[in-house]
Amino acid sequence: MAFSVCCLCFCVIWVAVMFGAGVHCDDTDSLLGAYAPGDIIIGILGSVHSNVKDLQTRISPDKYTCTDFDLISFVESLAVIHTIETINDSGFLPGIRLGYLMCDPCAYGTKALQCVEHMLSINTCLPMLPDYLNFYSPVKAFLGERYSELSIPVAKLLSLYMIPQISCASSAPALSDKLRYASFFRVIPSDIYQTKALTKLMLHFNWNWVKVVSVDDDYGNLDLKNFLQDAEKEDICVDFQEVLPDYLSLQNIEQQIKELADHIRSSSAKVVLLILRPDLVKMLFEEMIKTNTSRIWIASDDWSTTHDLMKMRGINKVGEIFAFSFFTGNIPGFEDYLQNLTISPGLRNDFIREYKQMRFNCSLQSEHMSHLDCNVTDPQEANDDYLITAVHLMEVYSQRIGVYAIANAIRKLLHCNNTACSGDTNFMPWKVKFASTPCYKQLMLYSHTPVN
Amino acid sequence: MAFSVCCLCFCVIWVAVMFGAGVHCDDTDSLLGAYAPGDIIIGILGSVHSNVKDLQTRISPDKYTCTDFDLISFVESLAVIHTIETINDSGFLPGIRLGYLMCDPCAYGTKALQCVEHMLSINTCLPMLPDYLNFYSPVKAFLGERYSELSIPVAKLLSLYMIPQISCASSAPALSDKLRYASFFRVIPSDIYQTKALTKLMLHFNWNWVKVVSVDDDYGNLDLKNFLQDAEKEDICVDFQEVLPDYLSLQNIEQQIKELADHIRSSSAKVVLLILRPDLVKMLFEEMIKTNTSRIWIASDDWSTTHDLMKMRGINKVGEIFAFSFFTGNIPGFEDYLQNLTISPGLRNDFIREYKQMRFNCSLQSEHMSHLDCNVTDPQEANDDYLITAVHLMEVYSQRIGVYAIANAIRKLLHCNNTACSGDTNFMPWKVKFASTPCYKQLMLYSHTPVN
Repeated sequence: MAFSVCCLCFCVIWVAVMFGAGVHCDDTDSLLGAYAPGDIIIGILGSVHSNVKDLQTRISPDKYTCTDFDLISFVESLAVIHTIETINDSGFLPGIRLGYLMCDPCAYGTKALQCVEHMLSINTCLPMLPDYLNFYSPVKAFLGERYSELSIPVAKLLSLYMIPQISCASSAPALSDKLRYASFFRVIPSDIYQTKALTKLMLHFNWNWVKVVSVDDDYGNLDLKNFLQDAEKEDICVDFQEVLPDYLSLQNIEQQIKELADHIRSSSAKVVLLILRPDLVKMLFEEMIKTNTSRIWIASDDWSTTHDLMKMRGINKVGEIFAFSFFTGNIPGFEDYLQNLTISPGLRNDFIREYKQMRFNCSLQSEHMSHLDCNVTDPQEANDDYLITAVHLMEVYSQRIGVYAIANAIRKLLHCNNTACSGDTNFMPWKVKFASTPCYKQLMLYSHTPVN
Repeated sequence: MAFSVCCLCFCVIWVAVMFGAGVHCDDTDSLLGAYAPGDIIIGILGSVHSNVKDLQTRISPDKYTCTDFDLISFVESLAVIHTIETINDSGFLPGIRLGYLMCDPCAYGTKALQCVEHMLSINTCLPMLPDYLNFYSPVKAFLGERYSELSIPVAKLLSLYMIPQISCASSAPALSDKLRYASFFRVIPSDIYQTKALTKLMLHFNWNWVKVVSVDDDYGNLDLKNFLQDAEKEDICVDFQEVLPDYLSLQNIEQQIKELADHIRSSSAKVVLLILRPDLVKMLFEEMIKTNTSRIWIASDDWSTTHDLMKMRGINKVGEIFAFSFFTGNIPGFEDYLQNLTISPGLRNDFIREYKQMRFNCSLQSEHMSHLDCNVTDPQEANDDYLITAVHLMEVYSQRIGVYAIANAIRKLLHCNNTACSGDTNFMPWKVKFASTPCYKQLMLYSHTPVN
């Protein structure tokens, strides 16, 4: 894999959220997948599962059942939890403990809204008030969601309460609209910059005839619109656009992928921009590998650093892949944390439990199953280095930025020094004062030349 | 105004919602603008106001204050209420009275979500449950919203409870996705057909070089995407696309409209497609009239039958306007109803009260003020024929279709004959069984040649 052809300067909104003190919350019901008590509770929205089962045949409001464990989102959620624990252990907020509630929306907008309603409720009741000036929400800020398709309805709902939401990955341009998404912030730039960078990349290489494939959700549609506008300005011609559905369990998705692969093979455009989620890219690449079809691929940020794709069997046959991604870094101590995963007493994490079952229980026959260690007496006690090899840890760095943005704001608001915080932890989330301090960040252009 | 150049056949999903019996609800708090008791309560979402005040400077979760009374939406809400009253008086559902709660989202997505949460709450509490199989919602079905931008988040939320939502105007293609919008129905076709019809219209007249202006919200973005795809297939070239913000109160909106007018004047494209809300079209036309600029305009369905625009001073200077609209009809007795508006004892309708103040109270200096009758002793007792002259009543016919779709379904579910209904009115909304019966409807092409 060869890195770095050029760098472009990007402006990133740095979130500085100022918090007051908070309340303890002990809601541990079935919707919540992870929990730790604390003086101030952060809500985590993380799609550890990427699918909801049987949506096609759902005719009654049953509980959603999630499938398709997503290793990257799982590690992202662990990065958040690890960072919160690091902050608590470091004395960064002396005398104050950050806690969290985590709910898995399973990449489904309606479930994301359910998560938010649930996490804002008090004794299983979400109070209806003419205004929310006196609403002591149990959760003081939300971290997530990853997908814009989910962040958009969540941000619309949270605007009602003016509770801050900080996404580490939702890059849809619409989310910059402060009138519609009043309490939404993010630690990555809007795609409006990404699509401009993509067209400049195409111009640089004189690629003026490209094919575009996008996913049919808010993320894909908005990105597509922006790219088409930018491409038009730069006289880049777009071959017929293809759209894939966003729901993976559709019966005809495999047929649609096959047809898409045919269209790509028969198109005279040798450069293909894929505005897709990693799971759809994987299915498409499998088709291309089968038929030894090589193209120049350009990645949207949603799959630009997906380590998993670069390790596919036969990936070297698909051709060159160009990708923009955000500046990344290492999370101190995170590798050790992942190799020694445990759930401390008093805490809950159903996702770690599920992962360990998949990894160390031979009978489940999971794709993540360890072939050496899956016959252990207690899977929950086992550990190995699978997570640090299967996931590119640089990908999850933005989670640390998101958590620290919140922690820094709390530190300022509560007037903390090295030994104590003088402010009151019991506050209403809307009283948080935002201070968006612009900073500059480099967007790296990667050229992946995978070698099997 | 000359009608009817050609007709295209469209497939419209007819909503047949089957209902059981329901509960009485007497929630009349400040968020609700209209109310009538009944055995089965229908929730009405209608943006009688088209703006929320001071969103730019909102820093706390205060109650929203709405502005910009929208006469068409007001008359639409009256069409719903009149149809409900007609059904109750007619014995169509013998022994059963339909009631309603109405909330005004003021064309703002977050407020639409607040309306829904509020109307689903029981004693100011929205219960949080792992599933909603045993949730007796006070509202058994929702009628609305008009704007797709609002219907989309509302439909995502209502999918959680599987409570039917029936829109009479939201035409965004995304809403046809039953996986994401499981309980959403509409009585008009998706815009996917409209954009195809628009490109066929352009081909028919050999207009292969057009300018497109769209509003930057879910409705505008999705319609634009579909039109661009259809236009590409038909080799229609699109001049640089222009996008207007969706929030009217922005300080620079007038400047943006002026710049847009300049671009239209300087463009070589003489045909302009406007995917906009009526208020933005009005502002643009005012600019065109000032400078005597004539073009061929093509209307999206959002303003295709807006009577108000056709009556603008100097409208004959803007040129020819082509518009597709849906098949319409007369609502029996509705003209009389509008000329004798009263609020019956036991009912509430703040919108009628507000309208009568504007119309018959000279001191308010409203644009709707009557110059003959605004000095009456009690504005609430006054009436005239203003509504039937200011609004093209054919525009609101789809409201009647929506209400009758619900009433027909109830009639079937409760096994009603001419004298009684044998079914139980106390049911859970998700138990409603949907039967989508396809029917065909004509989409009319109008050519407006306004004469002042």
